[in-house]
This record gives sequence, C-alpha cells and structure tokens, in this order.
Amino acid sequence: VDKVRIGIIGAGRIGSLHAKSIQSNIANGEVTAISDVVVQAAEKAARENGIPMYAADYQTLLKDPKIDAVLICSPTNTHADIAMEAARAGKHIFCEKPVDLSVEKILEAKAVVEKCGVKMQIGFNRRFDHNHKRVRDLALEGALGDIHIVKITSRDPAPPPIDYIKASGGLFMDMAIHDFDMARFQAGSEVYEVYAHGAVLADQAIGEAGDVDTAIIVLKFLNGAMGIIDNSRKAVYGYDQRVEVFGSKGMAAGRNDTPSTVEFAGAECVTADKPLYFFLERYMESYTAEMRSFINAVQNDTPVEVGIDDGLRPAIIAQAALRSMTENRPVRCDEILRL
Amino acid sequence: VDKVRIGIIGAGRIGSLHAKSIQSNIANGEVTAISDVVVQAAEKAARENGIPMYAADYQTLLKDPKIDAVLICSPTNTHADIAMEAARAGKHIFCEKPVDLSVEKILEAKAVVEKCGVKMQIGFNRRFDHNHKRVRDLALEGALGDIHIVKITSRDPAPPPIDYIKASGGLFMDMAIHDFDMARFQAGSEVYEVYAHGAVLADQAIGEAGDVDTAIIVLKFLNGAMGIIDNSRKAVYGYDQRVEVFGSKGMAAGRNDTPSTVEFAGAECVTADKPLYFFLERYMESYTAEMRSFINAVQNDTPVEVGIDDGLRPAIIAQAALRSMTENRPVRCDEILRL
Amino acid sequence: VDKVRIGIIGAGRIGSLHAKSIQSNIANGEVTAISDVVVQAAEKAARENGIPMYAADYQTLLKDPKIDAVLICSPTNTHADIAMEAARAGKHIFCEKPVDLSVEKILEAKAVVEKCGVKMQIGFNRRFDHNHKRVRDLALEGALGDIHIVKITSRDPAPPPIDYIKASGGLFMDMAIHDFDMARFQAGSEVYEVYAHGAVLADQAIGEAGDVDTAIIVLKFLNGAMGIIDNSRKAVYGYDQRVEVFGSKGMAAGRNDTPSTVEFAGAECVTADKPLYFFLERYMESYTAEMRSFINAVQNDTPVEVGIDDGLRPAIIAQAALRSMTENRPVRCDEILRL
Amino acid sequence: VDKVRIGIIGAGRIGSLHAKSIQSNIANGEVTAISDVVVQAAEKAARENGIPMYAADYQTLLKDPKIDAVLICSPTNTHADIAMEAARAGKHIFCEKPVDLSVEKILEAKAVVEKCGVKMQIGFNRRFDHNHKRVRDLALEGALGDIHIVKITSRDPAPPPIDYIKASGGLFMDMAIHDFDMARFQAGSEVYEVYAHGAVLADQAIGEAGDVDTAIIVLKFLNGAMGIIDNSRKAVYGYDQRVEVFGSKGMAAGRNDTPSTVEFAGAECVTADKPLYFFLERYMESYTAEMRSFINAVQNDTPVEVGIDDGLRPAIIAQAALRSMTENRPVRCDEILRL
Repeated sequence: VDKVRIGIIGAGRIGSLHAKSIQSNIANGEVTAISDVVVQAAEKAARENGIPMYAADYQTLLKDPKIDAVLICSPTNTHADIAMEAARAGKHIFCEKPVDLSVEKILEAKAVVEKCGVKMQIGFNRRFDHNHKRVRDLALEGALGDIHIVKITSRDPAPPPIDYIKASGGLFMDMAIHDFDMARFQAGSEVYEVYAHGAVLADQAIGEAGDVDTAIIVLKFLNGAMGIIDNSRKAVYGYDQRVEVFGSKGMAAGRNDTPSTVEFAGAECVTADKPLYFFLERYMESYTAEMRSFINAVQNDTPVEVGIDDGLRPAIIAQAALRSMTENRPVRCDEILRL
Repeated sequence: VDKVRIGIIGAGRIGSLHAKSIQSNIANGEVTAISDVVVQAAEKAARENGIPMYAADYQTLLKDPKIDAVLICSPTNTHADIAMEAARAGKHIFCEKPVDLSVEKILEAKAVVEKCGVKMQIGFNRRFDHNHKRVRDLALEGALGDIHIVKITSRDPAPPPIDYIKASGGLFMDMAIHDFDMARFQAGSEVYEVYAHGAVLADQAIGEAGDVDTAIIVLKFLNGAMGIIDNSRKAVYGYDQRVEVFGSKGMAAGRNDTPSTVEFAGAECVTADKPLYFFLERYMESYTAEMRSFINAVQNDTPVEVGIDDGLRPAIIAQAALRSMTENRPVRCDEILRL
Repeated sequence: VDKVRIGIIGAGRIGSLHAKSIQSNIANGEVTAISDVVVQAAEKAARENGIPMYAADYQTLLKDPKIDAVLICSPTNTHADIAMEAARAGKHIFCEKPVDLSVEKILEAKAVVEKCGVKMQIGFNRRFDHNHKRVRDLALEGALGDIHIVKITSRDPAPPPIDYIKASGGLFMDMAIHDFDMARFQAGSEVYEVYAHGAVLADQAIGEAGDVDTAIIVLKFLNGAMGIIDNSRKAVYGYDQRVEVFGSKGMAAGRNDTPSTVEFAGAECVTADKPLYFFLERYMESYTAEMRSFINAVQNDTPVEVGIDDGLRPAIIAQAALRSMTENRPVRCDEILRL
Repeated sequence: VDKVRIGIIGAGRIGSLHAKSIQSNIANGEVTAISDVVVQAAEKAARENGIPMYAADYQTLLKDPKIDAVLICSPTNTHADIAMEAARAGKHIFCEKPVDLSVEKILEAKAVVEKCGVKMQIGFNRRFDHNHKRVRDLALEGALGDIHIVKITSRDPAPPPIDYIKASGGLFMDMAIHDFDMARFQAGSEVYEVYAHGAVLADQAIGEAGDVDTAIIVLKFLNGAMGIIDNSRKAVYGYDQRVEVFGSKGMAAGRNDTPSTVEFAGAECVTADKPLYFFLERYMESYTAEMRSFINAVQNDTPVEVGIDDGLRPAIIAQAALRSMTENRPVRCDEILRL
C-alpha cells in the first residue's frame, strides 16, 4: 500500500497525539477515522487533524474495509478486548501500554492475535527515545561487550491524582512497567527473578490508597546481567529518566534532556536548566518514532519492533515485583507464569 | 482574523520548510497558495502540504485578496523587489535574509514598506533558538547586569559549493550576517565600529574565488559592550553555534545541541556525540518559532520581533567588516551609511 | 600540644602515603617514628620523609612516651590486636579499614579502646572526598530534604591479584565495605536490612577463588531511606566512584574526577578524559583531609569524625550481604549482631 | 648533582609557595637559602619549610658556591637587575613574570644571561596547567591539524587594589601578558600584529588610574593562525580561565576547574560549583610542575621549557596592544622591536 490507513480508537491525550503525529510527520500513514465514546472528542480530533471520519463506537472502524490498522488508545481495561476484536476483524494493532493489568487476560489476547495473524505492537515508546536508543545501539555495535549491569533511574515530577493511583494497578504495573521493558531492551535478555523494595516516602495519600511511591527493584537476567531500577512518584526537579549500561568493554549512560543547554554563572553559583518537565515534553519525538516503526512494519509486512510478548513480560515482572515487596523475598517470574 | 492566510513565494528548501511548519504546527496560520518559477516545485509543495493553490508567478499571490501575508523565499537578488511589490499590494511580509546584498537597495525597500504601512519581518531565525534566546532572556531578566562582552562562535561543518560562494556576497554578508544580528540582539545595542581579520585557511578554492573562509571580527557597541565573532567555513566536527554573554552580574553561555546526551566510557577514552550537523538539524525549531512570531504579529497587529532595520544594520556591519579586512583598519559603520 | 606526634605502624604504600602527607601538608602534626617488620621499608620511609626514628617492631613506638598517636597501616589481620595494644599504651589510634574481617574481633577491640579512653578513627577516607562530602553537605544544609534514595556506583578499574582476593574477605568485606560506610554517611541513618546479588561476570579466576566480581546491594535504613550499591572489580574505563542522593527537596550527584576538563571534537566524535585511574589518584586529597581531621581531634580533644562504630557497622553489613547472597534472601543486620 | 640546590630571592607569597612546593614535592631539588629585604619574612619561610639559611640580602645567596640556581621572586622592577647579577655569579635563574616592564631592559638582561651561559626560565606557569597543557598536547599529537583559531578567555574574579593597578604597567602588561604567552604556546607560532580594544566597564577607579578593565585583543600569527583574547578584571562568578584551539582536524577546549563536580537539582533550578576562586586555587599544581621542569633542566643540563625569549615576546605584544588601543589601529610587533 502507498499509505497505511489508520483508525484511532480513543481520542484522549495520547490518541490525539498520535493523530497529529501521523498527519504531520509520517508520509506513509494517514488517519482515516477516529472514535471515542465521547463523540465530541472524536469530532474535535478529526477536525483539528484533517481526519475524514469520526464515530462514537470503535466497531465502525473495525468494520471499515479501508482501514488497515487501529491504534488502541482507550482506557487500559478495554485494551485486551478491543485488541481481540480488532484481530478478528483482520486489523493490525498498535496498543498502548499496559495491555491489561491481568497476565491471564494478556495471554488470552496474545492467543487470539497470533491465531488471527495480525501484527500487534505495544506502546513502549521509550525504546525509541534518542538517548535510550543510543545506549542500546552502542551495545548492539559491540562497544559495551557483555552486559553486566543495567541501571535505570525513573522518577516522575509529581504524583498523579489519587483516583488515578487507585485504578492504576500500583507503582509496579503503572509506572515501573516502562522500566521493566527498558531493562529487557537494554539487557537483551529476559528477567528470571525480581527483588523489590517499596515505601511511602513522598506522599502519605498514596500509602492510604494502598500503593507505594518510592521503590528499588533488582532484576536478574538469564544472560547473567543484573538490573537496578529506582522509582519515585515525586522528583521536585522534574522528570528524571536516565539509563546506564555497564559491560565488559565499557559503559554508556545518558543524561536528562533540558529545554536549553545554557549555563548561568553568577556571584552565588552556576545554574542550569532542570530536565524537561514530563513525558509529553521528554518523549514527544519517541511517540512519532514508534508510530513510524509500526506503520513501516505494516506497510512492509515486517515484524514489529515491540511485540505482544513485550507487552506480556513486563506485566509478569510487575506482578513478581509486587509479590516480592509484599512477601519481602526474591520472586521468580515463573512463580507468576511459566512461559 | 481567525487564521492568517499566507502565500509562499519560492518553493525551494526554505519555502517548503515554512509550508510544512505552518500547516503542521501553527494553529492560527494557513498556507493558501505557493508559487515558484519552477511550477513543478510549487505543485509538489502544494500537494505535500495540503495547500489549495499554486502558481508559477508570485504576482498571482499578490493579487489574491484572501492572502494576508507573503513569505519571500526566492533567491536573494529578488527579495527587495518582491518585498516592494508585496508592500504596494498591501501584504504583510516575511523576508528571508539577507534582504539584499546592497545597503542602498535595502534602504529603498525599507522606504516603500514603511510608506505602505505593512509589517515586514526578516528571517533571522537564530534569535528564536532555544539556547540563544535563553541567554538573551537572562540578560533581559537582569541576571547578567550590564553587558560587557558578547562572544559568538559560528562555524559551518563544510563549505558550500564554489559557485554558491561566488554569488554569496562573501563570508561577511553571507555567513557572518547571522552573527551580526545575533550580536546586536544579545548586546541590546547598536554596533558603531568594526574590525575584521580574515584568511584562507580551510579551502584554497575559496581564496581563488576571492573570499576568505576563516575570520575574527571585533564589534564595538554604543552601550560600551564589545563583541567577538569567530567564523570558519569548515569545522570538521560539525556545526558549531555557541553564544556567550558576559556582564557585570554574571555570564550566560550555551553549548551545542547534540543528537543524544549519551556518553560512552571505554578502555581508550570517553566519547560523546558531535553537534547536530547543520542548520536544518540545529535550527529546525527556531524556524517554527519565528513563523509563529510573525503570524501572531500579523493576527494581533503588534510589531514584528525582527523588523526591517534588523535587516539593514547587519548588512551595514558586513560591509564595514569587508572594508576593515581589506584596508586592515577599524571601520565605523557611518562610513558605510550614516543613519 | 603544639604538634601531635605520630608513630606510623607499617611502611607500605598507605603508611608511606600518610607519612608524606603529614610531613608536607599538616602543620599541627609530625611523624616522629615509623616501624615495619621489613625494617628496610621503615628506614626508607624515614629517610624520604624526614622521620627521625624507625624500627622493625611497633612496640618500640608504643613504648615511646613522646608519641601521642599511632597510625595502624599494617596488614588487616594485625589491626585489631595492635589497636588493643596501642589503646592499653595510651596512644590515640588511626586504623586503616577494615578493623578486622571478624565482627567479634572488632567488638573486642572496641571494648578495649573504649575502656582505655583513647580516640580511634577508622580510615574511611572517602567521606573526606570533595565530591562525596559536597553531596553530604547539601543534605546537612537541608537542600535535599528527607533522604529517600542513596545510590552508589563503585567500580574498580581492574581486579587485584588472585592471592589478594583469596585473603581479602571477599568483595563485600574488601571492596563494598567502603560503600557501606558511604551509604550510612550519606543516609544519615543505620542500615537494618540488606539484600545482595553477586555474580562472576568479569574474571573467571575470581569465581574459582570463591568470590564474586560484580554485585548489586539493596540497603534499608531506619529512617526510611533506601540504598543501592553496584560494584564491579573491572571497569575498563577506570575507577568509577559516583554518589547520588535523592530526597524530598532535590537531588545531589557527583561525576567522576578526570585528569583534565578538555574535550576534543574531531571528525569522528567528541572525546574527553577517562576518570582518574584508581584510588591513589582519585582519593589522594581525601587521605590528607582525613589525617588532618584525626590530628585536629587529637590536638583539640574533640570526637573523631569516623569512630570505631563506623568500623563495626560496615563489617556487619558486609556479613549480612554475604549471607544474603548465599541464601538469596534479605538478611537483617541483627541476624549478624544485635547491637 | 643528586639534588639541585636552590636559593629563593623574595619570601613573599610566590616565593613561599615555591619553597613549600620544592621541599614537599620535588625529590631532586632542595631549597638551601632564602632572602628577603624584610628579613623576618625570610626567617619565617625558612623555619616553616626547613630551609637551613636565610638572609636579608640576596647577594649572600649569589655568593654561596653551594647554590646552583636562584628563583627571583622579588618585585618586578628588580627582576632584570638581579637576573643579570645572578647570571654573572653563574647561577641558573628562574624568574617570575614579567621580566621587566621595559622591553629594552629585558633585552639587556637577555644579552647578559646568554653571554654568561646560564639557564633562565620565565614563570609562565599556566603552560603547565593540566587543562591548557592537554589542549597543547592534542595539537602536538596532530589531532587538531593546522591551527586556525586560538581563543583565550581570561577573567579575574576581582580587581587588585588601585595602588597595584597604578604600578602594574596596565592590563596588557600585567594581566594579558599571561595570555600572550598562552596564545604563542598554543599557536606554536609568533605574533606579528596586534589589534586591541579596551574600556572601563567594571570599575571606574581603574579608569581614573589610567588603565582599562575590560579588553578584547586580536592576534595574527606567522603561521596564519588568528588569536582572540578577552579579559576582564572582574568576573563575579570567579576566575575564568579557558583555552580553545580550533584547527583543520578538530577543536580542543577546556572548561574551568571547580571545587567539586557535584550538581544539585532542586525545585527551582540545577546548580553547580563556581570555578575555583583565583590563581592560587586554580594554578597551584602548575606552580609545582613548572618548578619540576626547571629543576630537571638544571639537573640534566637540558633547555628550559620557557626561556628568556618567552619573557621578551609577550612584553613586546603587550606594548603593541597598548599602542593599538591608544591609536585604534592594528600595530605590528616590529614597530615595538625588530627581532
């Protein structure tokens, strides 16, 4: 096909972002329809991005024979069901993370998607970030040698609303899941055991909602590498997103991105910019890059770069981390699911 | 007006860039027509950017009553004449730099534009760069105190073709002119005297074409500040664009932008990315920002941020620099033109 | 006293280093005697550093009434016994780390030293490093707020000889012990539980000697903070010594020191210096600073900055870490010793 | 000789510094005598640094057959005369900068020293700075290719007392003279023409004393390279000492040294250390390195690294710069002295 025709399911923040990104920056893709249960949202996104059709129900998109692929940008608890419907309708799928809070449900979706033979890419956009990707590329080029230690710092600038926290599946499933994917990506290997320690240090209300806001997670990989993740829901200086990979031949590490590179030297001290505030600022280009990757895979019938197993495994790690923290012991991933 | 309607004159690299930038990223502007003497170029840019009309002659655009403003992106030697025609047609004008190689011609255009009462913004996009603007903002906030020294490093990664050099007006008019604008912007004052030293160090062919490829320029400002610019046509490590401003209360300085922030530490040394390669990579966002500024000025009927005098004065400085180098003496700007 | 008179026990690398440092840089201290079982080493150190007396046996120093304090720089397995003898002889004590490989032996020495009422400082010099101390000072000034996460990267450039490894007490007792002290110092709190994971990734011979060469250690502190340490015996780019402390009000982090700050930008990449090679280069000034601190404490009869408990607790943590790794479970420090 | 025996003439700040540096850190040199017209100063320096002899008059040192070399650390206006006396006494000479404020006087001293066949090293210590030397080493290794631009930023943290200014010979002779030496060192070539611009921007009292406090200087080198120096007597953020060399194959540039490498990221901004405050902090190690170089040259009878011509040429450049500023025109060095 000349252009991959895309329907977007969900016209919220991330759906609209993908719409704009495809229409503006991706030559071989076009959004031909968008749906949202709040039809005004779909209409608005359609108008602003030159999308010819909108609807309240996503089934309209699935039935449309001119649509090649759908982006599932609806609430998390609908992802798996819509993915299965889309697969049965023969549509290729891009699904935002997490696929589901339940590992079993992800497995169910995986079975259907694989049986239907459609592609399914998971929205782990950070793999496409210029810094994190550069670290991985150095490993792939052999510059790092064997990977020994993967170290991920991942801190949000401010906690989400408590209502969000309550429905989120908890810090490991909601926030660290990106880091579990990143760790697997950087290690080039699978995690077999997890040890997690969490606490409520930043915001008492998060503790009252049954979650933690600060955590350290140790990962053990099949290839011998070891991983460290540290998370906080509240870094007052902004979004802290750093990856460091240490290997037998060297180390690669990225710093945070900043609005400018300017330093001011004054009588009191030298000051510089804080990191870019949050994911929309920091990871904007990675959203376009992941979409370009997905559309190319559909157009050229090549494998997606982040497949359904990449959606499954971080969920297993997240559940292992939660159990580890609760029981204060290392937990093997195959306690959660034997793959 | 809800949206400023824009005609683009010239569908080359920079015209196409502005077309895409407006259509994708600027909500209160829309490109309604584009022209190019090579009509295929206009047609292609129109098609790719959803522009409803294209033409071979720019007069079609000037006659169109639905067009509010034009962007002059044609060859330099046509800028001033088209600007005058556009002014007489009542169109607001955005004109790429330089307005003309001749100071007299710029003066002529200035007179017509001012008489016709249209706005005219000059394409000194670097003022809108995140780093350079941050330096200036620190000065405007008072953090730097009185400005004492403005220091600009401006080096291209590789020389242009010799045919380009021959028609360029020379290093001072073609390349340093951006730096003269930046120096005025950062100093917040006008240059009254120039001393320039240039040489052929990088590429003998440039010398044979009658130009220099390496230069140092000293600027003296009316407010007492002093400026230094160093230029090279050939920095093998890429585009080097740094501004440093030193004042009574402190110093602000920007580093170059890089593709990533990743450092690799290996057995031999620590390595990092080279600067972004050239102006299309480094200054891409500044093109959108300057266009947003222009369109806002038209929509709100406010003064443009970079006016026709900002097109005139760097041309005067460039001529003073050329005379200074030729005669090896400091040259006052009012030797070139008494303003 | 005008000058604290010091006897040095052990004229090896570290004893000679302290001798030179005191004689050259510390006005209120003087080395008046040095001993070594290899008497030629003592003679040489005496000659080179203007020390008036040397001996083969340290008892000569302990008997000398003109000596106020001794530095115990002999092999680790002699530290505790000499410390007790010195305490009984009424000498103040500076003792290199670790005090002993056995927690019980350290307790025994502690009891004697405290009963004799002499001062005893432990040689955790890294607390006096300009970078690590600056991080701690920011915490003490309140700039970091409550401490949430202490993160320590500590990697050696190359493994020691296998014979050294075999007698070292293992990675946790020999190498990480510095990091355990640093973690306590930075957290401003005591560790109550440890989880450690180690592996042989860098050098198979280390594994054959019964040790690991790469490790990750999670620490839990009484004040709620959590700590992460990662260790490697072999970082090909040099000595990697970084501390990061994250708290409710901000984060402080130091980079490695380098021989110069020069960057080279070439056609291929931008390069910079590797970190200073090893502890003698990186921590040289901290050795002088710790000695100055000790001598001041003796002269002014004030508490030492790093006391005998600071020698005891890291040894407990090290044993807990070893047990944790062996049994693959978190181990509480009071399993090792209830304090 | 086993150790070079040194007499120090002048026991002020710099003389005492050299005394301590040699006694503490240089194995093949020893200070055997020190003199000062304020004999108490000589006595104090002798006592503190273990120097066996002191005197009020330097002639005592020159007559002492056991002294191999003298360091001339007396006031500037005595340098040349003492150097000539020392040369006639057959002593090798290390002379602080400047040799004299008068070019003629330097020439006279040069003639005597050369006739007597003793070595004479000039105290341009910055050549031995770890950063500046690293830049030069990269050039010598060929990494920079042909040198095109040498750029020196040299700003003091605060002006000296006005009485010092009045006797100093002015900014070019007193302050920029170090930069003229650095420029020659980095360019690997001689300056043939100078253009200087100066102004009173920082401190009106300096202007009243007949001097300037801020300057920009353009240098032209025989090998085609061009140089830029900018000077200020008052950088509120501290001592700013940066060198950048740009050539056909790349660029090398050093940043300022800082007390620590720690960055603090807080809710308002990211802050880092200011540069080391002034020359005693920043250049301390370079003083030891230059002294080691001198003592090695004497011991091994090899040429000094910074000879008497290196004392002469910067003085010529300084006079050319002063004339250039006064007459506002480029001035050739051979207008000052035809070499």
